[in-house]
Amino acid sequence: MSTFGQYFKVTTYGESHGKSVGCIVDNCPPGLQLSEADIQPQMTRRRPGQSALTTPRDEKDRVEIQSGTEDGITLGSPIALRVLNEDQRPKDYGGGGKNIDAFPRPSHADWTYLEKYGVKSSSGGGRSSARETIGRVAAGAIAEKYLRIAHGVEIVAFTSGVGPEHLFPSTKTHPTQSANPAFLELIDKITREKVDEFLPVRCPDETVCNSMADLIAEYRDKSDSIGGVVTCVIRNCPSGLGEPCFDKLEATLAHAMMSIPATKGFEIGSGFGGCEMPGSIHNDPFVKAPAVPPAEANGHATEAAAGRRRPRLTTKTNNSGGVQGGITNGAHIYFNVAFKPPATIGQAQQTVGYDEEAGVLEAKGRHDPCVIPRAVPIVEAMAALVVMDALLAQSARQSARSLLPVLERTVPVSETESKLLRESQ
Amino acid sequence: MSTFGQYFKVTTYGESHGKSVGCIVDNCPPGLQLSEADIQPQMTRRRPGQSALTTPRDEKDRVEIQSGTEDGITLGSPIALRVLNEDQRPKDYGGGGKNIDAFPRPSHADWTYLEKYGVKSSSGGGRSSARETIGRVAAGAIAEKYLRIAHGVEIVAFTSGVGPEHLFPSTKTHPTQSANPAFLELIDKITREKVDEFLPVRCPDETVCNSMADLIAEYRDKSDSIGGVVTCVIRNCPSGLGEPCFDKLEATLAHAMMSIPATKGFEIGSGFGGCEMPGSIHNDPFVKAPAVPPAEANGHATEAAAGRRRPRLTTKTNNSGGVQGGITNGAHIYFNVAFKPPATIGQAQQTVGYDEEAGVLEAKGRHDPCVIPRAVPIVEAMAALVVMDALLAQSARQSARSLLPVLERTVPVSETESKLLRESQ
Amino acid sequence: MSTFGQYFKVTTYGESHGKSVGCIVDNCPPGLQLSEADIQPQMTRRRPGQSALTTPRDEKDRVEIQSGTEDGITLGSPIALRVLNEDQRPKDYGGGGKNIDAFPRPSHADWTYLEKYGVKSSSGGGRSSARETIGRVAAGAIAEKYLRIAHGVEIVAFTSGVGPEHLFPSTKTHPTQSANPAFLELIDKITREKVDEFLPVRCPDETVCNSMADLIAEYRDKSDSIGGVVTCVIRNCPSGLGEPCFDKLEATLAHAMMSIPATKGFEIGSGFGGCEMPGSIHNDPFVKAPAVPPAEANGHATEAAAGRRRPRLTTKTNNSGGVQGGITNGAHIYFNVAFKPPATIGQAQQTVGYDEEAGVLEAKGRHDPCVIPRAVPIVEAMAALVVMDALLAQSARQSARSLLPVLERTVPVSETESKLLRESQ
Amino acid sequence: MSTFGQYFKVTTYGESHGKSVGCIVDNCPPGLQLSEADIQPQMTRRRPGQSALTTPRDEKDRVEIQSGTEDGITLGSPIALRVLNEDQRPKDYGGGGKNIDAFPRPSHADWTYLEKYGVKSSSGGGRSSARETIGRVAAGAIAEKYLRIAHGVEIVAFTSGVGPEHLFPSTKTHPTQSANPAFLELIDKITREKVDEFLPVRCPDETVCNSMADLIAEYRDKSDSIGGVVTCVIRNCPSGLGEPCFDKLEATLAHAMMSIPATKGFEIGSGFGGCEMPGSIHNDPFVKAPAVPPAEANGHATEAAAGRRRPRLTTKTNNSGGVQGGITNGAHIYFNVAFKPPATIGQAQQTVGYDEEAGVLEAKGRHDPCVIPRAVPIVEAMAALVVMDALLAQSARQSARSLLPVLERTVPVSETESKLLRESQ
Repeated sequence: MSTFGQYFKVTTYGESHGKSVGCIVDNCPPGLQLSEADIQPQMTRRRPGQSALTTPRDEKDRVEIQSGTEDGITLGSPIALRVLNEDQRPKDYGGGGKNIDAFPRPSHADWTYLEKYGVKSSSGGGRSSARETIGRVAAGAIAEKYLRIAHGVEIVAFTSGVGPEHLFPSTKTHPTQSANPAFLELIDKITREKVDEFLPVRCPDETVCNSMADLIAEYRDKSDSIGGVVTCVIRNCPSGLGEPCFDKLEATLAHAMMSIPATKGFEIGSGFGGCEMPGSIHNDPFVKAPAVPPAEANGHATEAAAGRRRPRLTTKTNNSGGVQGGITNGAHIYFNVAFKPPATIGQAQQTVGYDEEAGVLEAKGRHDPCVIPRAVPIVEAMAALVVMDALLAQSARQSARSLLPVLERTVPVSETESKLLRESQ
Repeated sequence: MSTFGQYFKVTTYGESHGKSVGCIVDNCPPGLQLSEADIQPQMTRRRPGQSALTTPRDEKDRVEIQSGTEDGITLGSPIALRVLNEDQRPKDYGGGGKNIDAFPRPSHADWTYLEKYGVKSSSGGGRSSARETIGRVAAGAIAEKYLRIAHGVEIVAFTSGVGPEHLFPSTKTHPTQSANPAFLELIDKITREKVDEFLPVRCPDETVCNSMADLIAEYRDKSDSIGGVVTCVIRNCPSGLGEPCFDKLEATLAHAMMSIPATKGFEIGSGFGGCEMPGSIHNDPFVKAPAVPPAEANGHATEAAAGRRRPRLTTKTNNSGGVQGGITNGAHIYFNVAFKPPATIGQAQQTVGYDEEAGVLEAKGRHDPCVIPRAVPIVEAMAALVVMDALLAQSARQSARSLLPVLERTVPVSETESKLLRESQ
Repeated sequence: MSTFGQYFKVTTYGESHGKSVGCIVDNCPPGLQLSEADIQPQMTRRRPGQSALTTPRDEKDRVEIQSGTEDGITLGSPIALRVLNEDQRPKDYGGGGKNIDAFPRPSHADWTYLEKYGVKSSSGGGRSSARETIGRVAAGAIAEKYLRIAHGVEIVAFTSGVGPEHLFPSTKTHPTQSANPAFLELIDKITREKVDEFLPVRCPDETVCNSMADLIAEYRDKSDSIGGVVTCVIRNCPSGLGEPCFDKLEATLAHAMMSIPATKGFEIGSGFGGCEMPGSIHNDPFVKAPAVPPAEANGHATEAAAGRRRPRLTTKTNNSGGVQGGITNGAHIYFNVAFKPPATIGQAQQTVGYDEEAGVLEAKGRHDPCVIPRAVPIVEAMAALVVMDALLAQSARQSARSLLPVLERTVPVSETESKLLRESQ
Repeated sequence: MSTFGQYFKVTTYGESHGKSVGCIVDNCPPGLQLSEADIQPQMTRRRPGQSALTTPRDEKDRVEIQSGTEDGITLGSPIALRVLNEDQRPKDYGGGGKNIDAFPRPSHADWTYLEKYGVKSSSGGGRSSARETIGRVAAGAIAEKYLRIAHGVEIVAFTSGVGPEHLFPSTKTHPTQSANPAFLELIDKITREKVDEFLPVRCPDETVCNSMADLIAEYRDKSDSIGGVVTCVIRNCPSGLGEPCFDKLEATLAHAMMSIPATKGFEIGSGFGGCEMPGSIHNDPFVKAPAVPPAEANGHATEAAAGRRRPRLTTKTNNSGGVQGGITNGAHIYFNVAFKPPATIGQAQQTVGYDEEAGVLEAKGRHDPCVIPRAVPIVEAMAALVVMDALLAQSARQSARSLLPVLERTVPVSETESKLLRESQ
């Protein structure tokens, strides 16, 4: 299926060489101010061609709203978004001419698409193209705007690894990010503006960023490619999001992230490193939540979000990554996403053709040696879609629950929602 | 939602202390021989109490089919499965008495459930209990039986890490499992019978298994707990499974695995280590597939699965983990799942109560210091559900496509399906 | 699929001759007081064997809650419900012995099930049995309880036609129910208690009820059967429910009703008769809503439902049946459901067997000559599921919208929700 | 939700005054020849302005395929379809100027949309506009093409009632259509070409058609409107479609039809009239199916549909309307859909405004006095979507089942599929 979400539903369409790519966003809350200007910035951040380190294709990617708004206000009806495909040169991918039609490109989707659909499509991309992510980023921008206004949610991703270069490498003292104070401090404060000061790599540390840039340049010069890791933090996420069984928040986040092209891994909170920690250290003890949410104290949250509230309790450490039993606890949610090296490389590759004969696939042109920097806004968009979907699910529940009489063992919605707000005033 | 799958739909229910736990399996193919005897073995493998290293609760977990079969044949109607809860002692969890009602247990779901639902449920477990996984394992056993008979699919999971002990640690020579010949040889041959020779740890290497057992015993003696990694391989999976965009097979696998309680990470194929490999090495070149599927050559696949066929091409290496562009290519699918240390420990924990007052939560009784061995059949079950769902989606597509006239650029279903079979005869 | 609803999800299971029938209700609001005693009354109303006019099978149908509640309060987790099949005599249906195994019963599902599933199941019933509706009624009772407490919703169905006998036959003066003051008065006041005073027929008019009873007796004596019409009214349904396009409230109601076994037609508001009215008369002009909702004025709504509010405007006439553009307007929703005569009859039937040979299917035993009275609680249950599902969808929307700043063209949720309430105080 | 279907998923978007309207069709079988020329004819049949009896707006409605095809062949990826809104004059609806902004139009969706979304949108239509149906018709045309090629399915709708004028009025002899030989003969042969010979009314009987045309003209001259009934037949539908419980084929058909704007009723087979027939007459006895499908015998089915097969048995009568127990039996499926008179009329209407003050809403301009003729292709489109969705569900099941060993009580798929085909050769 090409739909993501059960409550905030996003259906995308489009190949790299059709007329347009885009999506339909269903169930966006009505009454939200929304124009193309709210969506375009993330589209532009996703665009290739921003520097010598990324691909020189200039796609522009201007988004147009087709429906669902009137005079800049969402109506509650489906919002269709559309981006024209301006650059339709099918032969530039992976070698050109007869060559690419003769060979399924190694570690691309050419072969598996043929196995799945039984249709030999023309060279280059199709639905597996990176242009498929345009609809995701556009939809994500809408979700983000709502989340920011209504709940003060902040979602920031950045490059944390390129090849063997890591922003927070595992050490004896700090085997996982979750145990590293420098990491925890960074995710508490990092903003997109800060991340983009480190263009084109988007790793918010000058030294590491420079090493990564050098590494990418090295692979580019070798007509090779390299993978990496994107880290993302979600701040001010309401507590209570995520469903206990199959749709735990970490499960839908993992689904979302592993659906981004070229991903190979996902970890939340302590992640793989957490396997090596004893429970007595890994457990996050509860502490009374501060009266003023940490976000405000740090001074970078300026909008007064109507729905923002904090639970009475928070945790001292955050190895859980903001999620316990599959449900958010109000602490920062953070996770890593692993991206493999791009499969399209400038080097010749020994392989076998559709005709089962061995041969050499030669690529020409210049290719993006590392997708990590461009993946940053895609990761942010998918995170926004996950949170938005979980939020609407919980909104329905809370709203339904709020009309029931309070019983001995139930907590009134109003108390849950407002106690800290009252206290902090 | 408590439903997994879009085609093969599994809906589970049950808390640890209700009358029963179970599930409804919707859309199971009709005409499949099925009785409790097909389901019970995995239920039993999931059971605690198999050795001193696991929890001594004896739950028996006898599954009863309520509907959907007649005379041992599936009718095509929903199959309801039910396991009684025999052991309903709510006070034995996490310390007992007033204590556990006063404190939300650290890194458990007590607090987040209250934030989500607004209901203070009694001590211990509820929907976040490990008993919730019974329905998954029961449903998975049905999917597995179909997959084995119809396609010869084999799914085997095993313990590959406990704390810092790893079966295939990352080395200079073999930075990832995917580049390690010993790993590739193991997943080509490993069976459940072999894995269970290494009970109770289920790590199929005597030396490593013993180290892991010692480690678990050490944590048990400290009233502490430890996490680990489960590795799983899916052999003989048909090619063409998985949807290109949001429901890539790795995405639904990640969703499935990260929905298992206590998981913190997922990686497929080269995984996080693959980020450090250059594209020129990471890419999997195509080779002509052998006439005889490797599984048969190894001699351990004995059933003649009606639907088994192999694509004409396969890959020389398998850093992709059997999935390219989100779609299976017929090669072995393998992945790792990270589990955190169990949150329930025997040590006292300094934390804060529901009343916002600091205090000490003392646990008593004995607890499972490591869930990895018991997670093995759960990982297998979830893998079966993912493959079954993707298979039915693709079956609908192939079947619909098979009735269309063959065009210049389309491949007939019959050719796709049968060419290698013909050749290998 | 065996699931109904997108927000309040009900998945049913069970054949007439398996161990049990039942359902899982997912997404029930937490904090609702709920026990078997809330569910059993509608189960009992659905039961056959209540009088000589209905089938003498005594099934008892005691419902057991398996999960999802603790100490009589819903937890928010899936609620599994189960009713044992006590009466498992497969041979009593449609003629017994070899006879019924040789012939697919005319206008039953025997033949189409074989075409669909390819499995010859034993005689009688299976998934198409009326026992399948037990899960619906049980789930509906939960939805009803919530709707009544939270919104004062009242759902009452009754028998309005048996064969050619109609409670409100079409006349020159009143071509449709919607134009008949007697009908409108009845649906404004009718209660289930009143309907059950007219057992076993459940037509709330003594004269018509007696004629219907005579007619049913006549068909019973001829070993024949007869169909009829159930009318249902939903009072105090909140406005704003239903989705504008595919999931208009009348569409999901029609889906729900036409999924009940033996239904052949559905009409809402003016229905088929409305086709004959000119627009100038059919249109429902708006009027200012009375300060006191009509329901209270009639004195039969006694619970103070927390969520009850009435829109500022209502309509003078109600040919729309409470739904305009697919969305509820707060007026009474009413509709008719047509049921065919039961296919199981005592007369011998000339037909053709599975072996394609002509023959005579002879039935024995006594059969229900008219299902209308028993269908009454099933219609009510399905109506409750539709409203509950639409309500949760709208709750999510309203709740999300309530956190957005009010703009020039948007109406604050609080104003919408509370204006009339304030005025009426 | 704005999505229809679970397997063949159609998501629509668009208001009457946005940039475009359209849809995304997900899960269309790959390898199908498809271009705009396959879709446009039904779009044009849906267009208003074809005669003096319908509205003079000329919308052109040229459909553009955005994605999902390459060189005129479907790829299996989502097909996005788009139709520009060329005629965006918001003030022409319902009276213009301040007038329409002051009053919610009676029996329109203006008021319920405000109750639902809390946004006052500009005059005229929005999502409730008839333009919303463009996406449905476009998607339906794709489904129809597949169904025709693969299974020889034929779907034809026509006008059967306008106001009190009926093509097959209920009589003593023939209380229902299902018992009327003239009706059964008509639906066995009627084609779209024949129906369009009776433009603009689309009632395939010259006398009745003329009466209807006169009646419509009469209402047009009175600035009033009138409703009517559309009848639809589906021929050559494979047997085994529809799900036994909630998604019976008649239930999804009812859902589909009642989601079309302005519908008030749905009946299948004997319908409401069937309630008055005794079971002994209503039951459809089985007969051996003729070796040559009736469609071919009538000479109007010319394409050799690859998937066409007929069950071994059929029914002598067809009061069931081609569906038994919710599942198709291979006989003609036929049903009626009731449409109310259009709410937009030229007459002044006494009503109440948004400000709760009484007043007169005056309409100007010319309006469509009867939507029945234009509804014909919309009914056909929705029927195609229902059948296509059910077909893919059954394809997955049959395909999965075909790989299982044949047991004593199961029927091989190949036998089921091919027996009659073999016999008829």
